[in-house]
Amino acid sequence: MRFTSETTTSTGVSEGRFVLDGIPGVLWSPADAFGPRPLILLGHGGGQHKCAPGLLARAHRYVTEFGFAAAAIDAPGHGDRPRTAQDERFAVQLRNGMAAGEPVGELIAQDNAVRAAQAVPEWQATLNALQSLDRIGADGPVGYWGVSLGSMIGMPLVAAEPRITAAVLGLVGYDILTDAASRLTVPVQFLLQWDDEIVPRAAGLALFDAIASPEKTLHANSGRHVDLPRFEMGSAERFFARHLVDNAVTTGAR
Amino acid sequence: MRFTSETTTSTGVSEGRFVLDGIPGVLWSPADAFGPRPLILLGHGGGQHKCAPGLLARAHRYVTEFGFAAAAIDAPGHGDRPRTAQDERFAVQLRNGMAAGEPVGELIAQDNAVRAAQAVPEWQATLNALQSLDRIGADGPVGYWGVSLGSMIGMPLVAAEPRITAAVLGLVGYDILTDAASRLTVPVQFLLQWDDEIVPRAAGLALFDAIASPEKTLHANSGRHVDLPRFEMGSAERFFARHLVDNAVTTGAR
Repeated sequence: MRFTSETTTSTGVSEGRFVLDGIPGVLWSPADAFGPRPLILLGHGGGQHKCAPGLLARAHRYVTEFGFAAAAIDAPGHGDRPRTAQDERFAVQLRNGMAAGEPVGELIAQDNAVRAAQAVPEWQATLNALQSLDRIGADGPVGYWGVSLGSMIGMPLVAAEPRITAAVLGLVGYDILTDAASRLTVPVQFLLQWDDEIVPRAAGLALFDAIASPEKTLHANSGRHVDLPRFEMGSAERFFARHLVDNAVTTGAR
Repeated sequence: MRFTSETTTSTGVSEGRFVLDGIPGVLWSPADAFGPRPLILLGHGGGQHKCAPGLLARAHRYVTEFGFAAAAIDAPGHGDRPRTAQDERFAVQLRNGMAAGEPVGELIAQDNAVRAAQAVPEWQATLNALQSLDRIGADGPVGYWGVSLGSMIGMPLVAAEPRITAAVLGLVGYDILTDAASRLTVPVQFLLQWDDEIVPRAAGLALFDAIASPEKTLHANSGRHVDLPRFEMGSAERFFARHLVDNAVTTGAR
């Protein structure tokens, strides 16, 4: 892991750009950070990248509100990574399919599954390197946040990676994920858009049902695939704070 | 509305007991309260009453954390109100049905619907009286929280009552509520227990689907009917704070 630049915002967020085995990434942490702290891995959506506005907003709040670290890497074929001929074909197929009003869920699922097979070991190598840093440490709790492509990659990653102990996933409902869902054991907050034009509602509900974790919560909101409400950002923060900081925080009963 | 007692806790919560048209109720508010403030109406579950532990915990937090007022009344045949012969028959049928492992959802729905027809105008009269108090006022925002029986009553109440502008409902899924759901317009947070032994999952999802409100969120959690997780208490508080205090609070984007 080689850091190529570090900048610090006026709000005290250090943003370090790194490269690991050719994969570009970014680490956000408190500017004065030293010693272990919770780390949130952020998986971006399809067509986005490691510094997409939604990720950036989340990362900054994790740092400023909770003192966590957060990290993101570009998924295969995204951001600063090279596109293959297949990437270009997929982009055209997707654009044409959506323009024609055809269902594109299966097309996306097949594409994303290939990317996920590559991205899971990339994330694991990234986590190894991040945990060697003083400001994160090898024993700190790790969470994962990612929806859509971020869940196509994230669900098998969380299933395979015992260091990740809480995850926010969602906006997926493909059969290809059922196996990973059935191997999840950690608390999961699962997001579903009730009027998702890409992921059929029944498929999203079936995938939530397949999640084997004893603690799982479905948050289903009105709206289409990209209409995830802003208040779910705060909800995810509290989910991570509850599971990564103090598992015992409970403030009442029904 | 006649107040019969008022006590104040060491945490600054005034608890006033009242009677209105023979219906016993309780009003929680900041001990030093004067002037209008948001009011949360709390509907208890079947077999519970206006001071059930879950309601009490919620009411105290609304007062101490947000400066809101909160109020609860005993539902027909509950708490300090008289039981009819039909109430006694229902209690026996319900006990026997549950002991025999029979589905009791329809039995509960039929019973609760009768109570709801009586309770909706009772709540409206209570709201009239509460809004005449200086510490609440006629123009302040009003929320409703109630699950199970609290939603059998709450859903038609919120549908009928334009003064209520945000509601947390759930743990119901009976056809008899579909009409009320289709008349809802205010933001709704709807709770569903994924392994509910009383309300079939599909029926709960169908009722959520029937809610006409443009902003609606489903929170579905692992567990049975009474296993509503404690963290949903905080989630409801933030929902009410968002809608009753400052509609414009949004802290990021996807």
